[in-house]
This record gives sequence, C-alpha cells and structure tokens, in this order.
Amino acid sequence: MDRTIDKTRMMSSAEVAKWLSERDNFLILTHLRPDGDTLGSAAGLCSALREAGKTAYVLRNKQTTRRYEAYMTPYWSEDFRPDFVISTDIATENLFPANAEMFKGRVDLSIDHHPSNSGFAENTLLDSSCAACGEILYRLAMDLNGRVSPETAKLLFIALTTDTGCFRYGNTTADTHRIAAALIDAGAPGAEINKKLFRTKSRGRVLIESEMLNNIEFSRNSQIATVVVTREMIDRAGADEDDLEDIAAIHGQIEGVVVSITVRELEDGSSKVSVRTNKLVDAGAVCAELGGGGHAMAAGVSLGCGVWEAKEKILAAVDKVWK
Amino acid sequence: MDRTIDKTRMMSSAEVAKWLSERDNFLILTHLRPDGDTLGSAAGLCSALREAGKTAYVLRNKQTTRRYEAYMTPYWSEDFRPDFVISTDIATENLFPANAEMFKGRVDLSIDHHPSNSGFAENTLLDSSCAACGEILYRLAMDLNGRVSPETAKLLFIALTTDTGCFRYGNTTADTHRIAAALIDAGAPGAEINKKLFRTKSRGRVLIESEMLNNIEFSRNSQIATVVVTREMIDRAGADEDDLEDIAAIHGQIEGVVVSITVRELEDGSSKVSVRTNKLVDAGAVCAELGGGGHAMAAGVSLGCGVWEAKEKILAAVDKVWK
Repeated sequence: MDRTIDKTRMMSSAEVAKWLSERDNFLILTHLRPDGDTLGSAAGLCSALREAGKTAYVLRNKQTTRRYEAYMTPYWSEDFRPDFVISTDIATENLFPANAEMFKGRVDLSIDHHPSNSGFAENTLLDSSCAACGEILYRLAMDLNGRVSPETAKLLFIALTTDTGCFRYGNTTADTHRIAAALIDAGAPGAEINKKLFRTKSRGRVLIESEMLNNIEFSRNSQIATVVVTREMIDRAGADEDDLEDIAAIHGQIEGVVVSITVRELEDGSSKVSVRTNKLVDAGAVCAELGGGGHAMAAGVSLGCGVWEAKEKILAAVDKVWK
Repeated sequence: MDRTIDKTRMMSSAEVAKWLSERDNFLILTHLRPDGDTLGSAAGLCSALREAGKTAYVLRNKQTTRRYEAYMTPYWSEDFRPDFVISTDIATENLFPANAEMFKGRVDLSIDHHPSNSGFAENTLLDSSCAACGEILYRLAMDLNGRVSPETAKLLFIALTTDTGCFRYGNTTADTHRIAAALIDAGAPGAEINKKLFRTKSRGRVLIESEMLNNIEFSRNSQIATVVVTREMIDRAGADEDDLEDIAAIHGQIEGVVVSITVRELEDGSSKVSVRTNKLVDAGAVCAELGGGGHAMAAGVSLGCGVWEAKEKILAAVDKVWK
C-alpha cells in the first residue's frame, strides 16, 4: 500500500509526543547508505523512548560505516517484532535498506526534514526548515520527556554536526546553533565527537585524498575539475568504504571550480559518477542526461561502462546542460 | 613602562561599555601574524563604536592575509592620532606588529581571552573561558548599543568561526554556539562566511596539501608524522603565504599520529619548525629543547640551519622529551 502526501496525517511535535507516550514497542528505520543524521536521529529517538520507559530498537543497518558503529550498538536489533514502526530521515520507501523491505506500506510514523518526503507513512512529522532531522528529534525529545539525557544529547549532536558538515554548510541556521548549545548543555561531548568525526582521518583516507589531488583534470577554463578514481588508486591507498565517504566534495572546494566530477571505478568494473555544482549549473539535470538524478547541487549516476568512457560521457552531458 | 597583571585594572563588560561611552577617538590594535579573531574582534569593536557615534579606526596590520583584507578595509588607518588605544586578542606587547611599537606602555584597554595576558594595559577586560575574543566583543557590543548591526555581527562571526575552526575545535562551548545563533539572527551571513573561509581552497593550497600528503615520513610506529616543505615544493604548488596558513595541522589529522612535525624552508634557506601533539607529548617542551616555545599541543622554533638538518634536530628533541 502506497500513500501519497495527501493521505498521510501531518502531526506537530507535541502531538507526536502524546502519540508515542500512549503506545509501546517501537522499531526505528534508517535509510540506505546511512549517514550520521539518519543514524543519530534514530538512536537518539530510541534512547529518548527508553528514558520514557518504552521498549524501542533501531533496525540494524548493515551498511553502517565504521565511524558510527560503536554509537549504534546499544540500539540495534535484527529481529525485534514491533507494534509500531517509525522512520527517521527517510524521504521515500525507495530508500529503505534491504532488511526493511517488509515494512514498506507499514510505517506508522515518518520523522523527516526532506521537503520531498513522499508521505509514505500513516503519520508524518516534517520540518523542512531544519538543517538536520536531529533538530526535529531534539524538540520531540523535549516534548516527550521535558529533558534530554547526556546519551540522547550525544546521539542528536552527531545528527546535527554530520548533516551540517560541522556547522559549515549553507543549511546551518541560528536554530541549529541554538540546539547545538542546548545539546552541549545537556551533556553532549561536542568537542570529542567533532574531533573523532571531523579532525581524524585514517591513513587510507589521507592517501586517497592525495591520489585524487594529484589527478585532477581541469577543463573549461579551470571551471570543471574531474577526478577519475580507479581501483588501482583505491588499492594503493588501502582505502575502504568508510574512507571513500564524501570524496566527491574534495575537489569542489577549489576556488573558481563550478562543476566537480568524480568518476569512481566499482569492483565489477562499472562506474559511479558524482557531480557537484554551485548554483550556476544544475547537477541533477546533468545526471538526468545519462539516466541518473539528484539535487540541483549534488547528483549522481551509475554507468555500466568503464571509468574512462564514463568520464567522456559525463563531460559531454555537462557541455549539453551548461551552455 | 611595563605593567604587570597586578597593576592593570580588571573591568567588567558593563564597566567597559560605560568607559567607552564617556570617551572618543579610539585606535584599535591587532597582533602579529593576525588571525580572524584579532581582526574580526578589532573591526567588530570599531564598527560597534561607530554605531555609538564614536570616531574609531583599526591600525592597519600589514601582515593581514588575502582572505581577511576586504573585510578590514573600511576600518584601516595608518596615521590616525587617537585619544585612546585599545588592543583586541593580544596577550603581551611582544605580539605588537612593528607599526604599533610606539603604543607600547600606552594601551588604555586590553580586551582578551588569553589566560596568559600579561596585564600590559591600564585597563583589562579578560574572559579566558571564551573560545574566541569575539565572544567578549559580542557581549560588549550589546552592553554598549543594546543591539548588534548586521555589519558588526558579520565581523564578530568571523572572529568566532576562525578561532574555533568553524566550531570544530575543542575550545567550542555551548556559549560559542549561543553567540553564533545570536549573530546569525542579527544578520551575520554565516553560510557565506564559512563557505569563503572553510570551503574554498585556492589551487595553490590544494597543490601544497597534495605535495605534503605525498611526502609524509612516519616514524616511531607511525605515531610521528614528519613533512619537510621545501621552497621547491612551495614554488611548484604556486603557494603564497595565505596558502601556507595552518599547514602544520594537515598531517596531525591522521589517525594514530601523536606528534606531527612540519619543517618549512624559508626564503633565506633557514627553517621554521612547527610541532603539533596530542596530550601525550608536550610540544612546548620539545621546541624548548632547541630554544623555541609555545603551548602544550602546538609549538614552534626557528632554526638557522637547512631543512634536512632541522628535521634531524627536531626528531632528536622529540626522542628526548617523549620517553
């Protein structure tokens, strides 16, 4: 059963707090390729529900990367049979991980900050003005318990800081900072989390960044920066999946670059292309040329061909869209 | 005339606001090798004083790097003859730039957050619990004018965000976030400033980072990471002084590294050594072995010899201190 945004019931934070307090036995879902916001929001909600005396688990997401695993361990379950299913930071059911397939059409409450939320759940708590879904969860935890424990604060701080690139990205608002202050006051070890997530790099990460910086090809008057990341480069750096997180952001930082392209060779020899742009060029439109999609400033496409052919194709797509 | 901390008069923010409102014609000093905190604090104070109807300038600091110059231009003076001299973020008179020599022993008010402030000024407003001197200036501007204009907010946001590495460093507190929220509410373009200061790298910067990452030498079971930065590397990257800001931080991010050493070749062939450590090793003690100094986790020393000899000397000093 698929619902549209018209069919879901939109709820306020206070209404959701009441709804939760009247129920029990919750399972919380996170999205495919989970980031700190979906994981921190889910675990933070789980922690807040347990403080309210409820039984709650997060469905174990097998794609969780090394950096988040230890934070999540106390909340994971693979086989809990819930009475109510909640999702955090998931815009559509297409983003459910494989082991959450059985919950399609069965989500009781979706808590999200994506304006594109499809309304797949029976009830929805949506605030698209929030930089991170974790901001919504902070307010909900306050409505539910009147306070936030140090453990819940830690998990929600992870949600905030990761979705804003440590308060660096354009989505960061005064409210984000206000909630960060409240979470630190409540006991979130902000400095420790930021050191771990933003100031520590594995050797594999350092080496793959170095490989990439050495292999940037500039075109169109240095406004396009393209990097092809081959298996050989990844192997030489000894980089794993965790090390490759958000590598598409690296060369987009260079002054004057409008379009940054990353073409990554997958293990089967096919290519994963990421396109990052500033407001001048629509990244989603570029990737749509080749059957992919995404947002205006960050999009992607998977191509069955090898990386060098993929590079030519995506550069041609940029030329087509960027007149 | 040199004052000690006993001789200066410690003032509260409200007292300083009253003191300022009763006076006029202010010149504000910044420190040697100026960073965003000394510059943003000085310009923010200057802007707040002008809003209060006062005549105020910042003494032009010729070492100001490219990234800050445009923000400072409206406030610079090289020859204003003040009635009162104020310093921001300066711990001792040794840190005065050359063109401020004439004001030694003549500073009426020092506004600072360094616990080591020597008490060189007649009056001192000190709060060492603040991550950035800019936090003190925010409270002072509120005490002075009851509000903060968008222009003042912008300059103070620069102070906050640069001294905390965009809210990433361990000095960031709940108060830092609360003041950041207040500054954004007052009109500081937080996203724009962070994009410019933290998400844009010149090609020279990207290339020198790449050169450095390619030339890390690991020792003592990969706990020491050393990089020698030669003139040849700097020239090949086309990097200028602005591009070299804080390069000592780059390899200290690597997981497991306890001591990171940067040995940079200066134009005259001598060497500038920077040592960054975590709590296990005292960087100041390491550099003191060779006649330098600094803090427990960040210190430096200038050596007359070439870089390769300097590298051997500093590694020997590490061995001596780190048993």
